[in-house]
Amino acid sequence: MMLVNGTLAQTIPADDRGLAYGDGVFRTLRCVNGNPLHWERHYAKLAHDCERLGIVCHSEALLLAETRVAANGFADGVVKITVTRGSGKRGYAPPEHPVLTRIVTAGSFTPSRAAAGEGGGGGGIQVRLCALRLAHQPALAGIKHLNRLENVLARGEWRDPGIREGLLLDCDGNAIGGTMSSLFIVENGALLTPDLSRCGVAGVTRERVIDAAKTLRLTCRVEHIPLQRVLDADEFFFVNSLIGLWPVTRLNLRVWATGRLSEVLRAALQAGDVALS
Amino acid sequence: MMLVNGTLAQTIPADDRGLAYGDGVFRTLRCVNGNPLHWERHYAKLAHDCERLGIVCHSEALLLAETRVAANGFADGVVKITVTRGSGKRGYAPPEHPVLTRIVTAGSFTPSRAAAGEGGGGGGIQVRLCALRLAHQPALAGIKHLNRLENVLARGEWRDPGIREGLLLDCDGNAIGGTMSSLFIVENGALLTPDLSRCGVAGVTRERVIDAAKTLRLTCRVEHIPLQRVLDADEFFFVNSLIGLWPVTRLNLRVWATGRLSEVLRAALQAGDVALS
Repeated sequence: MMLVNGTLAQTIPADDRGLAYGDGVFRTLRCVNGNPLHWERHYAKLAHDCERLGIVCHSEALLLAETRVAANGFADGVVKITVTRGSGKRGYAPPEHPVLTRIVTAGSFTPSRAAAGEGGGGGGIQVRLCALRLAHQPALAGIKHLNRLENVLARGEWRDPGIREGLLLDCDGNAIGGTMSSLFIVENGALLTPDLSRCGVAGVTRERVIDAAKTLRLTCRVEHIPLQRVLDADEFFFVNSLIGLWPVTRLNLRVWATGRLSEVLRAALQAGDVALS
Repeated sequence: MMLVNGTLAQTIPADDRGLAYGDGVFRTLRCVNGNPLHWERHYAKLAHDCERLGIVCHSEALLLAETRVAANGFADGVVKITVTRGSGKRGYAPPEHPVLTRIVTAGSFTPSRAAAGEGGGGGGIQVRLCALRLAHQPALAGIKHLNRLENVLARGEWRDPGIREGLLLDCDGNAIGGTMSSLFIVENGALLTPDLSRCGVAGVTRERVIDAAKTLRLTCRVEHIPLQRVLDADEFFFVNSLIGLWPVTRLNLRVWATGRLSEVLRAALQAGDVALS
């Protein structure tokens, strides 16, 4: 099921700047019985990311309506919303008055997703340290934009289906996140998540974990986290909108038991998974 | 005129990885009477860039045939060739056996191109120092891939049509190139062009200038070039496949006269512009 600018379609104009330059942003979210989870956060992030690129996002009402149309009929669905700067003449200069392209696609969340490395990581997952190092680009840091070759190259480093995620470091050796997820560690009872002001994607579920920590009166700090601190951490987990929370039980040779805070936060995330009605 | 996988078309599948992740590469080249200039170099660069992303490019014969079909009827034409990793399921993991997408588009080179900042810079152009700094990503450096948001943001910094190009520095303050072109300076009679092992695009015309310098027995070095050396340079020019060579006569407050080596190299590039027959 795919809507392009509100119309059932399978294609986009080949001169779209999303294709030519990756000039756009996207979101992936879960929908239960056609209703999105954490919609306000997802829309706020989409609009914020558009603004960072100098694009004025479509209205919340429009995108919500199209998300519901696309997700309709899926008991447990995944919706991807892509917004690009639209068609353009050749040349990098952004058009002064762009006509944005919006693409809303939906599919079933289970069970095919498990094969893609989603879901089913509840007991703890095995993780690989990626060789690719993320570049520092403050102008694009935190944004879920369409320039994702770093993620593609990093995810292309392994094919072993037993490895569910890859840990990405930046060029200074700080842990930044997974190839498709946000990272947290637990150190002496405190939560830590990487500073994403130079690279990485500041995800909606990362924000939910930070908020859940507040509610639970847990300390949560945003810091630069060198690899060694991950290896020395008491707990280590990844989160995103589809997988929820994945405790890491192995990173190369280092092993962990599933930790208490990981369990507490996973339960808190699940309790908060109430669809918009 | 647009060919998508060899068929007249205006659209591509909306699930193409070129759109989703910028997972592909491109080339822009000039064609005279339907025949491409410097075809061997362009194809070699396209194939090399594909290889860097782990893609096996289409055959030279196929892309040349489609380039000629697209360019047919244009006395002076511009062809853009885009190759992506094709359609894919959701997720960054590159498919093990991708079915690539190829898009070949053609248009007339003159006169509309002048308005886009191409051609007509023969007497020397005015350039702006861009605020955006290029990130260091050795895994993607030199490749003309579809992750071009840095170029988009940099080109979006100005609208004054009197400014034809922007000078891009990297995060260390080294000059790397223009938003759409390669950079050379002349220092005490020697040519210098930036080291592109950490960022920037290693273009075909840059390579032609390096080769022309050899033929003309000029010294040409590839080095890191801090901004101050550009400001102190005797000559400064940009090149690409469409504009040829643009001498820079102003960068913010610094002015230059059009230099002798710029003229010599421009003439050498023009003399080499013989179309494939």
